[in-house]
Amino acid sequence: MFITFEGPDGSGKSTVIKTIYERLVNEKYNILLTREPGGTPIAEKIRTVILDNENVALDPRAEALLYAASRRQHLVEKIWPALKEGKIVLCDRYLDSSLAYQGGGRDLGVENVLNINLFATENTYPDLTIFFNVSPEVGLSRVSQDKKRVADRLDNESENFHDKVYETFLELTKKYKDRIVVIDASKPLNEVSENTYKILKEKLNELS
Amino acid sequence: MFITFEGPDGSGKSTVIKTIYERLVNEKYNILLTREPGGTPIAEKIRTVILDNENVALDPRAEALLYAASRRQHLVEKIWPALKEGKIVLCDRYLDSSLAYQGGGRDLGVENVLNINLFATENTYPDLTIFFNVSPEVGLSRVSQDKKRVADRLDNESENFHDKVYETFLELTKKYKDRIVVIDASKPLNEVSENTYKILKEKLNELS
Repeated sequence: MFITFEGPDGSGKSTVIKTIYERLVNEKYNILLTREPGGTPIAEKIRTVILDNENVALDPRAEALLYAASRRQHLVEKIWPALKEGKIVLCDRYLDSSLAYQGGGRDLGVENVLNINLFATENTYPDLTIFFNVSPEVGLSRVSQDKKRVADRLDNESENFHDKVYETFLELTKKYKDRIVVIDASKPLNEVSENTYKILKEKLNELS
Repeated sequence: MFITFEGPDGSGKSTVIKTIYERLVNEKYNILLTREPGGTPIAEKIRTVILDNENVALDPRAEALLYAASRRQHLVEKIWPALKEGKIVLCDRYLDSSLAYQGGGRDLGVENVLNINLFATENTYPDLTIFFNVSPEVGLSRVSQDKKRVADRLDNESENFHDKVYETFLELTKKYKDRIVVIDASKPLNEVSENTYKILKEKLNELS
């Protein structure tokens, strides 16, 4: 089973996933926790080109194509093999992030970005996506308080960019309402974590 | 005016283009001679990932997406600005190479590869494409005799790969017969060069 986690920056998603992962591992589930580029050397190299602060001239369409290439390589080398072994794959960001960030944030259009990603993934949608719903204001204020975090190219984007990303995420939760479950991520982290855990367990029990 | 040159490996294309370029510059035409990645730093970095012999695990779809990203960046940074300045742009390989090598050679399908490239180029087709027609047997024997050339990942492909590339090129010359002019590149280089020059001059006179 392929489960992805999506949300704006500062949604607390990555912290929550780690907690959930540890709980499920303790319960003896066979799980791969991953995020793009997933440690695959080629995908890492592609990611370096995308996130390099020096690459100020990176065109939005080139960026979208690079994310799709990195996603493809991660799927082929890590996600598909894990799914074949019967593992539960938890992936921190996937397809919907490209639709929201490049399709919405960069104004490339959700359908256009979806098309190149369907080519990249051979139509591999997640079985379940959990969307951590938090407004850009709350999310970005959390990010700016996180001193450990070094700003990359995306963090430096304008407020308008992050608003468009968020709006697009909300549209996606409607478009894919059978696949995407929305969680209120403005609540305290332990509560968000508990709610996420419940949704996952429900899905896991459904299928076992 | 945007003119591209296509052909299998060893078609003599690059040598001929240089000769033509010098002739036209002497005749005071305002020309940009380029080839992907065209010296644009981002496109160069992407190209490094593609051609690196270490990247044996590079997936064909990821490869096609990387070529499209590199093409996009080259278009945005070099080709479009030159065309805007009224230059004649001569480009050594472009869209059709991806259709033939990734679409045909790698079996991804011409239509699939065309789609991601139409996204990358925003439907920018060349005004004229000259196809250097030489069979893979003749082309590859020329390449193997060229001692200066260091084998990259593509040169090391199987005969079957190069046959599929060639067949696809021939299909493209039929599909795009209004755009692509075919030149017999099995002839001596000076003859090929002369024929190419004539075709180009005809097109330039047509438009001036």
